[in-house]
Amino acid sequence: MNGAESLVHTLLGAGVDVCFANPGTSEMHFVAALDRVPGMRCVLGLQENVVTGMADGYWRMARKPAATLLHCGPGLANGLANLHNARRARSGIVNCVGDQATYHRPHDAPLTADTEGWARGVSVWVRTSQRAAEVGRDAAVAVQAAMTSPGQVATLILPSDTCWDEGGEVAAPLPVPAAPQADPLAIRNAARVLRERKDVLILLGGLALTQEAQALAWSVAQATGNAVMAEGSNGRMERGRGRLALERVPYPADQAIEALKPYGAIVLVNSRPPVGFFAYPGKPSRHHRLDAETCLLTRYEADPIQALRALAEEVGAKPVAFRDPGPRPDPARGAPTPEGLARTMAALMPEDAVVADESVSFGRGFFKETYAAPPHDWLQITGGAIGCGIPLATGAAIGAKGRRVVNLQADGSGMYTLQGLWTQAREKLPVTTVVLSNRKYAILLGEYRGVGANPGRTAMDMLDLGNPDLNWVKLAEGMGVEAAKTSTLEGCGDLMKQSFAKDGPFLIELEI
Amino acid sequence: MNGAESLVHTLLGAGVDVCFANPGTSEMHFVAALDRVPGMRCVLGLQENVVTGMADGYWRMARKPAATLLHCGPGLANGLANLHNARRARSGIVNCVGDQATYHRPHDAPLTADTEGWARGVSVWVRTSQRAAEVGRDAAVAVQAAMTSPGQVATLILPSDTCWDEGGEVAAPLPVPAAPQADPLAIRNAARVLRERKDVLILLGGLALTQEAQALAWSVAQATGNAVMAEGSNGRMERGRGRLALERVPYPADQAIEALKPYGAIVLVNSRPPVGFFAYPGKPSRHHRLDAETCLLTRYEADPIQALRALAEEVGAKPVAFRDPGPRPDPARGAPTPEGLARTMAALMPEDAVVADESVSFGRGFFKETYAAPPHDWLQITGGAIGCGIPLATGAAIGAKGRRVVNLQADGSGMYTLQGLWTQAREKLPVTTVVLSNRKYAILLGEYRGVGANPGRTAMDMLDLGNPDLNWVKLAEGMGVEAAKTSTLEGCGDLMKQSFAKDGPFLIELEI
Repeated sequence: MNGAESLVHTLLGAGVDVCFANPGTSEMHFVAALDRVPGMRCVLGLQENVVTGMADGYWRMARKPAATLLHCGPGLANGLANLHNARRARSGIVNCVGDQATYHRPHDAPLTADTEGWARGVSVWVRTSQRAAEVGRDAAVAVQAAMTSPGQVATLILPSDTCWDEGGEVAAPLPVPAAPQADPLAIRNAARVLRERKDVLILLGGLALTQEAQALAWSVAQATGNAVMAEGSNGRMERGRGRLALERVPYPADQAIEALKPYGAIVLVNSRPPVGFFAYPGKPSRHHRLDAETCLLTRYEADPIQALRALAEEVGAKPVAFRDPGPRPDPARGAPTPEGLARTMAALMPEDAVVADESVSFGRGFFKETYAAPPHDWLQITGGAIGCGIPLATGAAIGAKGRRVVNLQADGSGMYTLQGLWTQAREKLPVTTVVLSNRKYAILLGEYRGVGANPGRTAMDMLDLGNPDLNWVKLAEGMGVEAAKTSTLEGCGDLMKQSFAKDGPFLIELEI
Repeated sequence: MNGAESLVHTLLGAGVDVCFANPGTSEMHFVAALDRVPGMRCVLGLQENVVTGMADGYWRMARKPAATLLHCGPGLANGLANLHNARRARSGIVNCVGDQATYHRPHDAPLTADTEGWARGVSVWVRTSQRAAEVGRDAAVAVQAAMTSPGQVATLILPSDTCWDEGGEVAAPLPVPAAPQADPLAIRNAARVLRERKDVLILLGGLALTQEAQALAWSVAQATGNAVMAEGSNGRMERGRGRLALERVPYPADQAIEALKPYGAIVLVNSRPPVGFFAYPGKPSRHHRLDAETCLLTRYEADPIQALRALAEEVGAKPVAFRDPGPRPDPARGAPTPEGLARTMAALMPEDAVVADESVSFGRGFFKETYAAPPHDWLQITGGAIGCGIPLATGAAIGAKGRRVVNLQADGSGMYTLQGLWTQAREKLPVTTVVLSNRKYAILLGEYRGVGANPGRTAMDMLDLGNPDLNWVKLAEGMGVEAAKTSTLEGCGDLMKQSFAKDGPFLIELEI
């Protein structure tokens, strides 16, 4: 057995049975092993940021890691931005990177690069296998690292000789450590704060965004007269009817500061104190009140259910029903507005849909209008590295087998990784992409005006995506995805309905 | 004056007047400064690997650096692969990366990443400005580093507060050190080897691929009865009628070993001893004879003209005419073959064209058939990081003002950075892209068979780009570039001729 075969056997043995791939010459023995050893679903992406973004989306829905297969340092580099998003979403990925043979590396051939160095910034764990006999063992550790709560990026670099040499040994799966339990002192301290004050915000993040965690947090808040909110960017949130109508900390600095002003204390449940996405002249980096008491219930890797249960008991909270979000809205008509599009979504989305949201500035109002939608999962861009939406939707469709995915996609960000549409067509995935086509980097136009001026000709050359206009229908069709354009909400609604009845992908270019 | 304004003034003062950009929020003061300070041509790319690849192509033709404008760590990450190619091409780039404000970075906001760490692998020089007053000085050093022979990637990281704070100071351009002269001992040693043996290869690379260097090397080879060849991957080579019919060291290991077998000594002129692009089981990493004497005339940064002149004098070489490459070929007809396409190119390309070659496996035979073409420059993918061709052609068209660029583009590699077509349309650049549409990673199918097996279903899922077929005409039209498809060489020739008569870009999808 060669090293590559031991790798595939070890991954499969540990339950890793999907591989998002864009291989090169140095990975041919890995590819050959995937051919010989049955059981791995291999999904090709036409650029590596599509590959890594798919692995992120897969984890967020399947809650188990996929493997990637990338080609040398530059192949890894192409996938770093979505690995950055995955790191911020705390997604587990077994990130496999083929590389030059151990004895070839010192010759500094053209493709040789600092593969380990590039991997470190996005990985909790990086290892370069040195011999075929070590590949299986290293792969088992990589899977363990990827699955360690709440999910982590583990990068395994495989010099080509470690794959083609004989002497590979399959390694048994390693035990995954349980998520840590909260410190009893932290629970008592949070309970004290919640009992003593009426201006406490319970801030939920990461693992604490499930329906179960929401219910526990809501019961605590109701029992103590306090509030609940979610962090600004979240990997996955359970939403819709039967879940908590949970607001996020707003993105714009002024709105965030305003929203957090009432709170003299914050109880952190798998979350961090809110800071600005960016700094702005004269505005604070921290968006909560500087006199606010921050009180850590659970770090991001801990089990929030156990902690929230204990907290509920401590404050004597009983289960209480969520507020009724009111009737399901009707689809909206006329010119597209954020609220209208969100209402149309809420009116039409199927039960148990997945929303992959890279709507950027247009999408900031989507939450309020979708509380009464059927139960669904909402995935956000977590690390601010644009180009996340299309790959995330693609991977989520594979991880959430059979559920409809709706990708709300800003056009400028969508252009970063449009290649992912081809994978949707090839794998016949149930993804409806709604491209919010405003032909500009709208978020940046807003930011530019914040600098204090109207953009001139040179600035507009860098902020405007018109001249020429992108034609998303042709781009989608060029990759085998059916598509249509509309400029009204009723048109968008009709196309959504049609797409939800199909098995495969569909793209709607919505002119906004 | 704020820091951003001092940056723009300093760049312009040093002659850097083109900026390839994809800005974000943290770069808005830089964008505003570009608006206020006239003189910089700003060219938008819709993904950062397009931006950095354009900067590489620009340098190769203009021989002066452009600036880039990238957004934080992930924006830099997206551009690393083409910075890797630029590093291998030894192109000068002033790589500007905006980042979180100095005081905001410790808060680890979502987009915060290891910007410096990612930059190091591709840059000879990395600096993060700390205060507005330092930005001008740092920019002047960055330009100096970028222009230091033979051309280098210098990365200047600009925290947003160093751009918006007042106190910016414009810095005067710094002197660029002259290219080092060859060691007189090295010249005498090379002369001795060339006089004593008849099995010497003069291997040209980098700066030694100009017509002038070719003429000197050819005269030395003719005077001493020895041979001349070029490295396998070259940033820019002057070719066609009136230049040396220069073979490259072949890419496939067996062919390279065979081509280098006759040579008992190699004189390195701005080149390195040939090594394999990849290692293969049982094949050597070094492709020259292990008993070959390697003799360094000039390192990559040295002036090859001075060294070759001195060498010619030392061996008593007189100028000799290049061999006549024979008549200009006629365009080929029928089904596309590499030789036929190359003949068609040679027959039709305008005087002084620029060829951006990312033809990968299909293009290995292009050189032999284009010696009798009109004089032209040939740019290759230098670092093996695919996705170089479209951006390189785009930047070359800006750097080589008015000259027609022909981009010979493999389809799989083209999909990596297809967004570059949009920039060609926006800037109305004279680029003819010929997509070699074989709907597979043909190079990998060859490599897979080298592993010793025919690919099965799983392997084909990762090597085949059909299912669904890409439609390059739609993809190009979706980005505003006129396009047409053909499956014959005469069809391709007709479309080439049409495109050469246009001002703007055109894409030909050639089914091969």
